[in-house]
Amino acid sequence: MKTECEIKVRYSEVDRMGIVYYSRYLEYFEIGRANWLEHFLCNYKEMEDVYKIGLPVIECGITYKKSAKYEDEVLLKTICNISELPKFITFNYELFKGRNLLVTGFSKHLFYCFESKKVIRLPAQLSQKLIFE
Amino acid sequence: MKTECEIKVRYSEVDRMGIVYYSRYLEYFEIGRANWLEHFLCNYKEMEDVYKIGLPVIECGITYKKSAKYEDEVLLKTICNISELPKFITFNYELFKGRNLLVTGFSKHLFYCFESKKVIRLPAQLSQKLIFE
Amino acid sequence: MKTECEIKVRYSEVDRMGIVYYSRYLEYFEIGRANWLEHFLCNYKEMEDVYKIGLPVIECGITYKKSAKYEDEVLLKTICNISELPKFITFNYELFKGRNLLVTGFSKHLFYCFESKKVIRLPAQLSQKLIFE
Amino acid sequence: MKTECEIKVRYSEVDRMGIVYYSRYLEYFEIGRANWLEHFLCNYKEMEDVYKIGLPVIECGITYKKSAKYEDEVLLKTICNISELPKFITFNYELFKGRNLLVTGFSKHLFYCFESKKVIRLPAQLSQKLIFE
Repeated sequence: MKTECEIKVRYSEVDRMGIVYYSRYLEYFEIGRANWLEHFLCNYKEMEDVYKIGLPVIECGITYKKSAKYEDEVLLKTICNISELPKFITFNYELFKGRNLLVTGFSKHLFYCFESKKVIRLPAQLSQKLIFE
Repeated sequence: MKTECEIKVRYSEVDRMGIVYYSRYLEYFEIGRANWLEHFLCNYKEMEDVYKIGLPVIECGITYKKSAKYEDEVLLKTICNISELPKFITFNYELFKGRNLLVTGFSKHLFYCFESKKVIRLPAQLSQKLIFE
Repeated sequence: MKTECEIKVRYSEVDRMGIVYYSRYLEYFEIGRANWLEHFLCNYKEMEDVYKIGLPVIECGITYKKSAKYEDEVLLKTICNISELPKFITFNYELFKGRNLLVTGFSKHLFYCFESKKVIRLPAQLSQKLIFE
Repeated sequence: MKTECEIKVRYSEVDRMGIVYYSRYLEYFEIGRANWLEHFLCNYKEMEDVYKIGLPVIECGITYKKSAKYEDEVLLKTICNISELPKFITFNYELFKGRNLLVTGFSKHLFYCFESKKVIRLPAQLSQKLIFE
């Protein structure tokens, strides 16, 4: 259960050292995550607007091996660990430039209901989609 | 009807040329605008959450004279033109480093009601605050 | 002399009102500008690294007609006015969602040499590319 | 060896859920880190421009306990572990709103020389400052 997406580094994402600013990878990860969710579970906007469920992050981490630079075309692989469902969902990310692994990371999320304003378990109607994938 | 606030340039705001990235000044302007609103009209969060009014921007512009750099401590002056009330409100901004004028700009806003989802005139209970200032 | 590029609105670009934050359009414009430069003049990274020329912005403006929202797929058209060359170059931008024009804007740039640390005219070897296009 | 700094949450830092976007805390951490470096070691700009040394991050992590919201005034505590010097330096961060701990995190950095384009050990003239603090 893995998705891939291509990202081209923008000028606005590069810092004084000429490399992608260290927080920007979390924005890339979010693109990968939204992609994965759309493919395997539910469009994220629909999740927020129709199901009234958000996925706030409770933990994340990044390991930097090589720098991405302005105009680099990088490939983000997103792999999801669904073993902690329905309470948590964890995404793992790998960012490549060609064959070079630049950055790895993860983010762990819980499910939050905007209506009850409480942490919830992922509703069965959504989690079933994953099981039957 | 003018406010001033100090801003210190962050590393994350500086680009590959070592200067503040050109869109970041709009983030600074927003700080000045929130400041002005809090001082003369109403705290912006209160405006959104209590009055259910937002101030979407309909036009803005920036003129760049000199660059702000990493760690520069700059002074933002915000002057508001309230002559177009209650339909519009326009803010003018001047960003100084010491005596040097670095950047000028403006933003023009209308009033939007989150409940009726319509453009509105600024309610009298709010606009009166400005008149009696 | 016009280029087009597609942009998908990221979650990180959307604000508390659920719409693209007003400064983010300048980041989109920069993508359109880099695209245009690559197509008609010179890859921007090459311009900075090989020719040692940067294009600092001296003025820009945005007019907001409709809001772009999270996950919107928008089309950015970039048209360049080269009549002020070799001293200045001005880009005009139009952002569409389907047939709806959301935002228009412009940015005016001069040419800056990183080596002499001076404002320069665009070297003939580069400006000729435009004339013979 | 600890520093503290106050940060006020900007509108541009808040996402569609009304809370600080998850990558923004790394920008806050960088403010705390620059502060700590200035206080105990060397102004970061001076380090880049005079000593030609950068501190690229090799690893970082964030744990989210509670959300910071628009206009929250938060306090960032930065504590540095210098036991890995002169090869690495690790910063630990705690972000408070009043007595509530919102977010914790860390970032681990190495030293990079912009002139030799190599990873280096922190020069003695700089590391001595820390020992005699």
